[in-house]
Amino acid sequence: MAPGESTERGTDRDNTAERGTDRDDTAVRDAAGTPAPSRRALLGWGGAGLALGAAAAGGAAVALRGDGGGGDATGTAADSGAAVPFHGRHQAGIATPVQDRLHFAAFDVTTGDRAELVQLLKDWTRAAERMTAGHAVGDGAYGGLPEAPPDDTGEALGLKPSRLTLTVGFGPGLFTKDGEDRFGLARHRPAALPDLPRFPGDNLDPARGGGDLCVQACADDPQVAVHAIRNLARIGFGKVAVRWSQLGFGKTSSTTPGAQTPRNLFGFKDGTSNIAVTETDALDRYVWATAKDGSGSGSGTGGGEWMADGSYLVARRISMRIESWDRTSLQEQEDIFGRDKGEGAAVGKAHEHDKPNLKAMLPTAHVRLAHPDSHHGVRMLRRGYSFTDGTDGLGRLDAGLFFLAYQRDIRDAFIPVQRSLARSDALNEYIQHVGSAVFAIPPGVRDKDDWWGRTLLS
Amino acid sequence: MAPGESTERGTDRDNTAERGTDRDDTAVRDAAGTPAPSRRALLGWGGAGLALGAAAAGGAAVALRGDGGGGDATGTAADSGAAVPFHGRHQAGIATPVQDRLHFAAFDVTTGDRAELVQLLKDWTRAAERMTAGHAVGDGAYGGLPEAPPDDTGEALGLKPSRLTLTVGFGPGLFTKDGEDRFGLARHRPAALPDLPRFPGDNLDPARGGGDLCVQACADDPQVAVHAIRNLARIGFGKVAVRWSQLGFGKTSSTTPGAQTPRNLFGFKDGTSNIAVTETDALDRYVWATAKDGSGSGSGTGGGEWMADGSYLVARRISMRIESWDRTSLQEQEDIFGRDKGEGAAVGKAHEHDKPNLKAMLPTAHVRLAHPDSHHGVRMLRRGYSFTDGTDGLGRLDAGLFFLAYQRDIRDAFIPVQRSLARSDALNEYIQHVGSAVFAIPPGVRDKDDWWGRTLLS
Ligand code: HEM
Ligand code: HEM
Repeated sequence: MAPGESTERGTDRDNTAERGTDRDDTAVRDAAGTPAPSRRALLGWGGAGLALGAAAAGGAAVALRGDGGGGDATGTAADSGAAVPFHGRHQAGIATPVQDRLHFAAFDVTTGDRAELVQLLKDWTRAAERMTAGHAVGDGAYGGLPEAPPDDTGEALGLKPSRLTLTVGFGPGLFTKDGEDRFGLARHRPAALPDLPRFPGDNLDPARGGGDLCVQACADDPQVAVHAIRNLARIGFGKVAVRWSQLGFGKTSSTTPGAQTPRNLFGFKDGTSNIAVTETDALDRYVWATAKDGSGSGSGTGGGEWMADGSYLVARRISMRIESWDRTSLQEQEDIFGRDKGEGAAVGKAHEHDKPNLKAMLPTAHVRLAHPDSHHGVRMLRRGYSFTDGTDGLGRLDAGLFFLAYQRDIRDAFIPVQRSLARSDALNEYIQHVGSAVFAIPPGVRDKDDWWGRTLLS
Repeated sequence: MAPGESTERGTDRDNTAERGTDRDDTAVRDAAGTPAPSRRALLGWGGAGLALGAAAAGGAAVALRGDGGGGDATGTAADSGAAVPFHGRHQAGIATPVQDRLHFAAFDVTTGDRAELVQLLKDWTRAAERMTAGHAVGDGAYGGLPEAPPDDTGEALGLKPSRLTLTVGFGPGLFTKDGEDRFGLARHRPAALPDLPRFPGDNLDPARGGGDLCVQACADDPQVAVHAIRNLARIGFGKVAVRWSQLGFGKTSSTTPGAQTPRNLFGFKDGTSNIAVTETDALDRYVWATAKDGSGSGSGTGGGEWMADGSYLVARRISMRIESWDRTSLQEQEDIFGRDKGEGAAVGKAHEHDKPNLKAMLPTAHVRLAHPDSHHGVRMLRRGYSFTDGTDGLGRLDAGLFFLAYQRDIRDAFIPVQRSLARSDALNEYIQHVGSAVFAIPPGVRDKDDWWGRTLLS
C-alpha cells in the first residue's frame, strides 16, 4: 500500500494532538483494537491484587485517549499517567509533548533473514500497541520467544501508561552492512540519511554509537520506559542485540508552548526556540519527510515514498564538563550562549521569548551560530535529555546531554548547524561529542493491521 | 554537647513524621532558620522570570513543613513537590517515606587537614539546609569556593523541593586510611561499622565501592537529586573528590504502609516486609543506634555517644541478569523468592501482607533465608533503587539493584543475613554483587547552629 492511501483504511489518526479529532471509537477503547482486558487475564497470574492496578491504568488510558490527548498539546497540565495514542500518520514520540524520562536503545540486527526481520518488526509493533496503552506484553504468541509463563517481565505491573511512546528508527546498517546488502534494502537508503562527517572536536566511541535499529522510549515514569525497552529486547532475542543504551533522567527541551522551559545541566533554559508540537506548519516544513524528499547527493538515493510522514533522527551523546563550567563567571556563561541564565532572554532582551538580536551576541555564541537565520532558515525539533552515568574515574561526574534532533533531511539541518558549532561555538571548551548515531524514522503505524517499517519492507 | 542534651537547645525535631509535631515556627518557615528569601535575591541574577518559580517552590515547602510532613508518613498521597524537614534528631532520608529517585555519591577526602574537613561539613550542612528547602545554594560565603557569580549551578531553578533529603555518612577511610590516623579519629570508629567479609560470589569492583564520605540524595525529581550532589561536590572542590556515584531510577522498597509496593527489575514486589516509617518501635530497635551501642569485637571500638540517633548503612551494587531471569518459568521465579509474582503473597498465602510460612518455602528461597525468624529476629530498613547503566558490552542491559540498608549494627544485621544468602540463595544464579560500601550515618543536624558530624568532630 502506498502511503497516500492510508485514509482508505479508515484511520488517518495523527499523534499530533491537534489533528487527532478524527480517531475512531475502537482506538479510544484500546490501541490494540479490542476492549481493554485486565492485566491479570492476560498474564494468567494468580492473585487478586492486580485487578485494581490494571483497572486504574486502563481507566487513565481511556480517559486521555477519549479527548484526543488535547490536554497535552495545549501546554496545560498533562496527565502524566495517561496514554498517548500509538497509531497515527506519524510515529508518536516526536511531535508529542516531551515526557520526563528517556530510555533509548540501539540494536544490531544479528539475523540475516529478511522474513525474521519483518516478523520482529510486526511483533514489536503489537507489543508496543499494548505497552503504550498500559497493558502488559503478550499472550504467548510472540514468534521465537521461549514459552516462559511470564510473557511480560512484570516490573511495570500496576503502573500507569505514563505517556509512554515508542519510536522506531532504521540505521544505515539496515540498508547495507560492511558493504553487504543483507536484506535487499540498499537502494532504499534515503539520501536524507547520510553518514555524518567527522566534525572537529569529535571524540566518538563506537561502542556508544551506530546501530541498525533504534527504539526511543519516553515516559513520565522511568520504570515504564525501561520496562518497554527490556521487553522489546526480549522479544528480539536471537534476532537483535542491544548495542548501546542511554537513560535520560531529565528532558532538556520543551516542545510545549506555555510550559516552563526545562534547564539543562549548565543551568540554562533549553528549548526556548524549539519547534513546538502545536506549530503544524513548522513540523510539516522542517520535521516530516514527504514522498518527494530523499533523492540527491547523499550516501543513498532512496527515501521518497516509503519515508513519507517519517522523519530523520540524529542522536549525539555529548559530555558536559560541569566542573569547569561551574568555575566560569556568570557573564562568561551568558556570553557563551547569547542568553541570560535567569530568564533565558537573548542578549539585550528582557524576556525569554523576545526575538533574539543575533548581532548583539558574540560571533561565537551558541544561539547565534545555531539560529535559523545563520542557516537559511532551517530548523530542527530538539528532544534531548540530561544524563549522568556515574563518574569518569577522575573524580568528576560523567554527565551531559543526550542530544536528539528530528528533522526532514539531515543534510540540510544537523550537518550544517553542527559544522558551524564544531568550528566556532564558545561552548566547545566545555563539551565533547562522544557518541553519534543517525536513523531514518519511518512513518507511523496507521492501525492494528499496520506495522513498523511496512512501507519499506512489504 | 552530649547527644542527650539536645532538647535543651529547643529543637528536638525528628524527621520521622509522627514525632515531628514539636517543631518550632522558625523551622516551619525555613530550614535555614530565616524567612524564605526569593531565589532571585539569593543569586543576584537578572531576569524577572525567576520570581514566580521561587515563590511557587517556597510556597510548597512551607505548605508541607507546616503540617509536619504527616501526609507522607501515613501513606496517603504525598505531595511530591514539597519539602522534608532537614533538621531533626535523626537525619532525614532514612525513616522518610522513600522518594522516587536517587543520586548517591561516595567521596574520597583529599585533604589531610582536620580543620578543612570540619569546615567542609559545616559548609555542606548549610548548603543542604538551603537545597532541601527548595532554595539555591549560596550567598558567596562558602569557604574555599572560587567566587564564581553563580553560587548555585542553576539547573534546579524553578523546580520544587521535591522531597529532597540529603543524608551524610562516614566510611572506614575517615577513621583510618592506609593505616594512618589522618584526622585523629581512629579510636572513634564504631565497632558496628566493620569491614565486610568477602562473601561467596562477590565480584567487587573497587572503583564502584568504598569511600570516606557518602551523600545519599533522594528526591521525587531526579534533576533535584543530581543538582544537590553536584553542588556538594562543587563546594567540596579541593577537599573531596567523587569516587563513584550511582543514579537510581526507581525505588525498590516501600517504607509506607498502605502505599502500593513498588516492583524491582525481576518484576516482584519489593519491600513488603520492610520496616515502615510508622513503626517507631522497630526503628528504635533495629535502625537507630544508641549511646550504649558500638563497643565489641568489630574492626573498631568507638561509636557509642557520638553515634547516638545515627544508623549504619550498607550499600551494594547488585547486577541482575535480567535476560536469563526472563527465560525462567514463572513457577521457578516464585519458588526462588518464596512469594508469588502477581500479588506478592508468601507461598501458600493469598494476600501480600499475610504472615509467611517459611517452612512452606524451599530452603533456598530468598525470603526464607532473609526473614528475621532465620536470624534471631533481626531486621533492617531497606531503601534500595533500581538502576540501568547502558549495556555490558555483550548485548545485555547493565541493570540491577542498588541495595541500601540501614541498621543499628552491621555485625548483627547485614553480615549474618548476607552470609546465608551468599551461601544458599537460589537467586544467586541471577545476581552478582559488584560494588560494596559501608558508612556510619551520624545523628541528625538538630538546628541551624548544628552541623553534620559535630558529635564526632567537635
Ligand atoms: C551540550 C550541548 C548543548 C547545549 C548545552 C545546548 C544548549 C542550548 C541552549 C541553552 C539554547 C538556548 C535556548 C533554546 O532556544 O533552546 C540552545 C539553542 C539551540 N541549540 Fe543548543 N545546545 C547544545 C548542543 C547543540 C547541538 C549539538 C545543536 C545542533 C547541532 C544545537 C542546536 C541548537 C539550536 C538549533 C538552538 C536554537 C537556536 C535558536 O533558534 O535561537 N545545540 N542550545
Ligand atoms: C538483587 C538482589 C535482591 C532482590 C531482587 C531482592 C528481592 C526481594 C524480594 C522480592 C523480597 C520479598 C518482598 C519483601 O519483603 O520485600 C525480598 C525480601 C527481603 N530481602 Fe531481598 N532482594 C535482594 C537482595 C537482598 C540482600 C542483599 C539482602 C540483605 C543481605 C536482602 C534482604 C531481604 C530481607 C531482609 C527481606 C525481607 C524478608 C522478610 O522479612 O520476609 N535482599 N527481597
